Amino acid sequence: MIGWEDVYKVVVAMFPLYVALVLGYGSVRWWHIFNPEQCNAINLLVCYFTLPLFTFEFAASIDPFKMNYLFIGADAISKVIIVMVLALWAKCSSKGSYCWSITSFSLSTLTNSLVVGVPLLKAMYGQMAVDLVVQSSVIQGIIWLTILLFVLELRKTRSDTLSMINVDSNAMKDVEGNNEQMVAITSTKPSLCSLMKIVWLKLALNPNSYACFIGMAWAFIANRWHLEMPSIIEGSVLIMSRAGIGMAMFSMGLFMAMQEKFMACGPSLTVFGLVLRFVAGPAAMAIGSIAVGLHGDVLRVAIIQAALPQSITSFIYAKEYGLHANVLSTAVILGMILSLPILVGYYAVLELLN
Amino acid sequence: MIGWEDVYKVVVAMFPLYVALVLGYGSVRWWHIFNPEQCNAINLLVCYFTLPLFTFEFAASIDPFKMNYLFIGADAISKVIIVMVLALWAKCSSKGSYCWSITSFSLSTLTNSLVVGVPLLKAMYGQMAVDLVVQSSVIQGIIWLTILLFVLELRKTRSDTLSMINVDSNAMKDVEGNNEQMVAITSTKPSLCSLMKIVWLKLALNPNSYACFIGMAWAFIANRWHLEMPSIIEGSVLIMSRAGIGMAMFSMGLFMAMQEKFMACGPSLTVFGLVLRFVAGPAAMAIGSIAVGLHGDVLRVAIIQAALPQSITSFIYAKEYGLHANVLSTAVILGMILSLPILVGYYAVLELLN
Repeated sequence: MIGWEDVYKVVVAMFPLYVALVLGYGSVRWWHIFNPEQCNAINLLVCYFTLPLFTFEFAASIDPFKMNYLFIGADAISKVIIVMVLALWAKCSSKGSYCWSITSFSLSTLTNSLVVGVPLLKAMYGQMAVDLVVQSSVIQGIIWLTILLFVLELRKTRSDTLSMINVDSNAMKDVEGNNEQMVAITSTKPSLCSLMKIVWLKLALNPNSYACFIGMAWAFIANRWHLEMPSIIEGSVLIMSRAGIGMAMFSMGLFMAMQEKFMACGPSLTVFGLVLRFVAGPAAMAIGSIAVGLHGDVLRVAIIQAALPQSITSFIYAKEYGLHANVLSTAVILGMILSLPILVGYYAVLELLN
Repeated sequence: MIGWEDVYKVVVAMFPLYVALVLGYGSVRWWHIFNPEQCNAINLLVCYFTLPLFTFEFAASIDPFKMNYLFIGADAISKVIIVMVLALWAKCSSKGSYCWSITSFSLSTLTNSLVVGVPLLKAMYGQMAVDLVVQSSVIQGIIWLTILLFVLELRKTRSDTLSMINVDSNAMKDVEGNNEQMVAITSTKPSLCSLMKIVWLKLALNPNSYACFIGMAWAFIANRWHLEMPSIIEGSVLIMSRAGIGMAMFSMGLFMAMQEKFMACGPSLTVFGLVLRFVAGPAAMAIGSIAVGLHGDVLRVAIIQAALPQSITSFIYAKEYGLHANVLSTAVILGMILSLPILVGYYAVLELLN
């Protein structure tokens, strides 16, 4: 059984995150320190400097030769389960669609693992849990966000093609008839190769992605040849990355303050998002974990890290590609607010597990 | 004798500060990430949130009942020496003036103790040196910046009065003659009380000042009744204050990038400022320290902390009151760039002291 002092330890670890969040929110809504243009500047600072260095610091600290491959396997299985369910739903249900499958995948699998996960899981299960959450965040950064970008790019190219066909067919119908349509489809259909080029370019322009890649690359080299990062470089990374959690939460507060409503989408979509985030994600992870035979604290960590608040990157991509950005914004904001009680609840319930 | 490994330790501690500085500079000059309005937003963030919490963290950590009073006495003596020399110069020399005395006082006594001093002196002499530099920074924040504000306010009121007299006298001379002038002087001369009111109001509106005051107040209470700060509050302060040094240096880099030239004033004023900062200040501190009988590492710390780069607050005030802001901007920028070699030089030379 966990006692009140365990719960208090978790609250102590999470409370400062909410303080930074409220400072960010208040500086726009109550004290009018920042206008939207200025909020944008702080977001840029976080996006280009603080968070990438923060990500790099953690990615560089893992030992790729000693990762918990069972845990990573469980993570992969849980994602495959979700993809399969969504594919089935898209094919069989009349309500299913490719677009909603993408959004549902985001909602149920992508978490804010480093910023919220590291302090929270450290307070709950110690350093072992931090190692696991960093591993899952690196895998998310390298594999799952790449896949998300790929399907978003694919959708965009498809709809671009369709609209081009519409323009083409409207222009040509009177002159040459319907056969032209097929030519247009063939000539504008993109190759897998050109799609991947766009995806890689996007990733190369995303500071967080390459921080993740460079960090992993360093981790490989360092652990293969037993090198240590020179303290002068470590200090240079730390000077900005130390600000990581605080600045990320502050900028999240700015983001909340700039939205007109906390619930940008209707109540039913809000509930849909929260159920995917806090129930479907952890449930799939539990199935995957039990399938590979995880147990004890590793199993608990696996389930709790799947119930962390929604990844902010997933919202950024949704906005960029114009795909249900309001649903993801609601999931990010409400998820953050609700995560403390929900995660403490999971913590208490999972303690009963043997 | 200090060896190369000691010098390297200092370089390791200081190098990250320059990295943050260069990132700030580069983000404006090379990568064009921020426009001036956006730089302003980041400065506001540092000024309202990061630096005050950073100052609070250090001020709250000192034990006011166990301060090194000899060191503080030496600091006071050094400042009195400088004030006396400046007063003498203002009275006796034809070049001396009230305005230049204020600026010279700023240049020779006010340092950037927390941001640069804490990491530097920790690398040189360990925790003992950090305690001393924090004490001197709290005294600077509470006493010396208050005095600086007071004399700047006094100068402003005097020049306001003079210009009012000019307006008055021009308007009335033809009508009633010169006697009116004396009435104007008497009626507009401000009382000490109203001046102090303005100074206190300015301090109350300055987040760094009240962070310093509140921190000291907490330190008094905590050490008098042996209280400990609850870890939930400490964590909430740390989440933003951890960003203190990095963000302060980054915003310093933004400041440098927004100036048209590194040397905003001519070469002779630049040399004048640097000599006051790196020679006159430490020399006065050495006299004060030897007068009260400091010796060994405390003496070394006392001298080196007096040779830290120029305080940024002193530039902010200079700009606000329109008093030689270009000289102080040059001292801040060049002082920061030159401080590493100069301070390492002091470190090496002072080691020869017995």
